[in-house]
Amino acid sequence: MVENMVETVNFIVKDKSFEKFGMMMILGTTGDAMDIKMNFFFTFWGLNLLTKKFKPKVAGMPFPMKGMGAKIFLKRMAKFGIEDPWGMIKEAVESGNMKLYPCQMTMDLMGIKKEDLYDFVEEPVGAASFLEMSDGGQIVSL
Amino acid sequence: MVENMVETVNFIVKDKSFEKFGMMMILGTTGDAMDIKMNFFFTFWGLNLLTKKFKPKVAGMPFPMKGMGAKIFLKRMAKFGIEDPWGMIKEAVESGNMKLYPCQMTMDLMGIKKEDLYDFVEEPVGAASFLEMSDGGQIVSL
Amino acid sequence: MVENMVETVNFIVKDKSFEKFGMMMILGTTGDAMDIKMNFFFTFWGLNLLTKKFKPKVAGMPFPMKGMGAKIFLKRMAKFGIEDPWGMIKEAVESGNMKLYPCQMTMDLMGIKKEDLYDFVEEPVGAASFLEMSDGGQIVSL
Repeated sequence: MVENMVETVNFIVKDKSFEKFGMMMILGTTGDAMDIKMNFFFTFWGLNLLTKKFKPKVAGMPFPMKGMGAKIFLKRMAKFGIEDPWGMIKEAVESGNMKLYPCQMTMDLMGIKKEDLYDFVEEPVGAASFLEMSDGGQIVSL
Repeated sequence: MVENMVETVNFIVKDKSFEKFGMMMILGTTGDAMDIKMNFFFTFWGLNLLTKKFKPKVAGMPFPMKGMGAKIFLKRMAKFGIEDPWGMIKEAVESGNMKLYPCQMTMDLMGIKKEDLYDFVEEPVGAASFLEMSDGGQIVSL
Repeated sequence: MVENMVETVNFIVKDKSFEKFGMMMILGTTGDAMDIKMNFFFTFWGLNLLTKKFKPKVAGMPFPMKGMGAKIFLKRMAKFGIEDPWGMIKEAVESGNMKLYPCQMTMDLMGIKKEDLYDFVEEPVGAASFLEMSDGGQIVSL
């Protein structure tokens, strides 16, 4: 680990866009490679990113391009060695450095169930647990 | 207070969406219950959230649903015991842990006056005061 | 410098809106005046803000107003002494406190070249370098 590096970064993910997915993936897997602990807390629309059937679209493009935009980005990312983003995330989770927390209240409000989510996410937590978890680290709202 | 917990979190609120309102409300009132000081600095469109007449709409829904979406969320939140969000915020403010700061430049740029804002907000501050205020704590841009 | 003030703030700029441009400009130049080091890391659409030909539009206004909105804001800001935003940014960069980092992967993904960017930006960096750079400071995602 980088000398003096903050030991934990706690991210809030509140959007379901491809951009936020990309940032989560790049920061989480890079952090894992650098042995920095990174917790991601998925709230509001961000929780969609953890559901198995969801395909994020590009927010920063005009309407008819949003879905296609994501495909184009994925294709270009493959050329840079990022061929299986969720596979890379799963690896970072399994190495113990990256943790994905669903927001309990969002699950309740939106009727999302545990079986809708990827198998490698943590147990759902509330805002109080997130703030306790962030103790000693820093909070970044993506 | 949680042992070693960061003592102050300084949030920047720059959007007027229901989502950002919800995050501010949940984090601020949860922080109050945990005795963490939380300052919220409202800039650009975020300042609208502090005006008495404003009703936030859901940003992450297609156009015709934005207003209705907020009503649906409020109704569902009531079932989880959140019946009067602004009342809860006011309580957290009065307990001294949550502070709401209007951005002075935004007030000037948008012609918003002090009497348009809720009575329990602090005096307007500028970017320099916000950065000084954040001294020793951390900054989170919601 | 303010006593005990965090020495470095590391911002992630991921949008190309006028609002994010404004926040970057105000925070960066105010930080410079207070002698706080501020690094801005431009990723995804945020990188557009560093290209010489780009004019940011107001995200929080309905479609036909987005471009005009930016002009109105710039005109009103001029009345508050902010007549040349990029000139002020350049000054803060030259004084050594404000640094603008293009994201290398975004440049590759979007085909943006160094000569498209303002002369006073730093060399492009990747996510790992950004995390190393943030060592000891804090991360804020605007």
